Order: sequence, then C-alpha cells, then structure tokens
Amino acid sequence: MRTPSDTPVTRAIDPDDTALETPFLKCLMRLIRAHDAYGMWEVKSDAALLADFIVTKEQRRKIPIIGDPDPDVLWRLEAFYTCVALVIEERSGLLVSSTMMMSHEGFGRVVLTTGRLVVLSKSLRDVHRFGFGTLGKLAKAGAKLVDHAIAAIETYPDVARA
Amino acid sequence: MRTPSDTPVTRAIDPDDTALETPFLKCLMRLIRAHDAYGMWEVKSDAALLADFIVTKEQRRKIPIIGDPDPDVLWRLEAFYTCVALVIEERSGLLVSSTMMMSHEGFGRVVLTTGRLVVLSKSLRDVHRFGFGTLGKLAKAGAKLVDHAIAAIETYPDVARA
Repeated sequence: MRTPSDTPVTRAIDPDDTALETPFLKCLMRLIRAHDAYGMWEVKSDAALLADFIVTKEQRRKIPIIGDPDPDVLWRLEAFYTCVALVIEERSGLLVSSTMMMSHEGFGRVVLTTGRLVVLSKSLRDVHRFGFGTLGKLAKAGAKLVDHAIAAIETYPDVARA
Repeated sequence: MRTPSDTPVTRAIDPDDTALETPFLKCLMRLIRAHDAYGMWEVKSDAALLADFIVTKEQRRKIPIIGDPDPDVLWRLEAFYTCVALVIEERSGLLVSSTMMMSHEGFGRVVLTTGRLVVLSKSLRDVHRFGFGTLGKLAKAGAKLVDHAIAAIETYPDVARA
C-alpha cells in the first residue's frame, strides 16, 4: 500500500466544506488516517489529506488522455472503493468483500459482494485520471454507490445473507 | 497473457486418459489452443499441453513452501478459472464475469458472477504450487466448481438474471 503524497497542497480545497461532515467522507478520512503509521499527517487537516482526490476540469485537461496510472492514484482508487465497502458494512451490518483487478494500463474491474449477492460491479477505465471535481462530488459519488448497494441488499435480503 | 512453456514434456501423462473427454478438459483445451496464434502446438497432443497443470506429490514436495508465483503458473491459474466460467456459461446460457486479484506473493481472490449472483468466490493461496495430481483430478476439481455454481444459479434464478 502506498500512502498519499506528502507534497504541499496546492489545490484549492475549502477546509470548511460541509461535504467533510458526510458519512462517506468521514469514513474515508478514518481509512486514510489509519495508514498514518508514524503520525506524519496529524498536523494536516482532513481537507488537505483529501486534496489529491480532487481533480478539477482544468487539471484534468492537462492529463494526457492515455497514460499508465501511478501507484498513488491506484492507492486512492482502492481507498475509495474500500470506503464504499465500509460504509455499506456500517449501514447493512453485513460483511462486504472487495475484489479489484487492474491492468497496468488502468483498465480493470471492481466487484463488491456480500454473501452471494453482488452489491457493486464496475468496469474501471482511464484510472490515471481518477478524481472528482469537488469534495461534494466525491462525497456524492460514494454515497450513490452505497445507496445502490443497500437497495440491492433490500431487494435480495436472503441472497445477501447466503 | 503468457503461453504454456514449450519445454519438452517430462511428466508422465497418459495421452489416452479418459479425463480428456470430460467437458471441462475439452473446454480447457479449446481455451489453451486459442492462444496458439502461430500454430506452434498443432503437433502437440492435448495431454502434452495439459502436462504443466499436473504437479505430482513428489514434484510438490520439491517446491519451496513459500515462493512467488511465476507468470506461467499465473497463466495456468487464470486459464483454469476462465475455463470454469466458460463451462458455467455453456451449461446455464448466462454470461459469467470473472474477476481475479493476485498479490505478487501468490495470495488473492477469484470471483465469478452472473447478474447479481456470486457463483464462485474463492481465496487463492500458495499459488506457486498450483497444480493437480492427475488429469482426472484436474477435470474433477473443475467440474465440482461448475456444479456448485450451477446449483447456486438454480437456487437463485432471478438473481442470476438480475
């Protein structure tokens, strides 16, 4: 597992963004801080630690269309889907397994399952440009995936517990 | 994708083994021969091409307990589970997605899904020693996984088609 870069934050992130109070971003922060084995990020704000997840339109335009994902972006991608799995677990009380497959070119698939039920299955592409326009969009994207998963569990309760 | 080694077959494989006539091994042969882009293996028998899947007790004893899997064994592992997926597709008429995650140390997970149903979910370990005692055992192991998957599809037909 790689850790978020320790480069100074140059991106415009509002530390008072209300999105930071959403269950999804709170969980993501716990997840990221759990990797802070040496307490290096204790002085950093949540917004600063999430800054790398934010890729604005201008930044995205500067990223080549084709490119191999670097370990840092793969780390963020994994953190994002692990967080989705964790929030599903919190809300459903069920264990969620996460399986992610990724080629070095940034194409792959992520599958979250609980019992015999697939709660999320998603093709991944253009992973080297993974990011969200704002913290609010990051929180919304995560919450949407969680909501869909919870709906699936409610539709097939016995399969989710099989 | 790597291809099976072109080294001479030194393992005792019976070319008249009846296991070669099982649906599973027939499918595995089709899968392996589909990778024969230059027709190099046309002169090889099915038994010779499957030889690397066979690891006898004596051979297994000589493999270190801890070791990183080489690309050839990963190729065989992938071929095996892809074949399981294909035979499930043949028998159920449903599309099966395969997701495999593997660390360089040979630990990982494979998940086969159809619709919203998990038809196979398996932890992988000691992958560097992946192999079966005989062709019969290889065919049996594959058929068993297929049978379990088909049983799951029959138990949850609507989830498999969701």
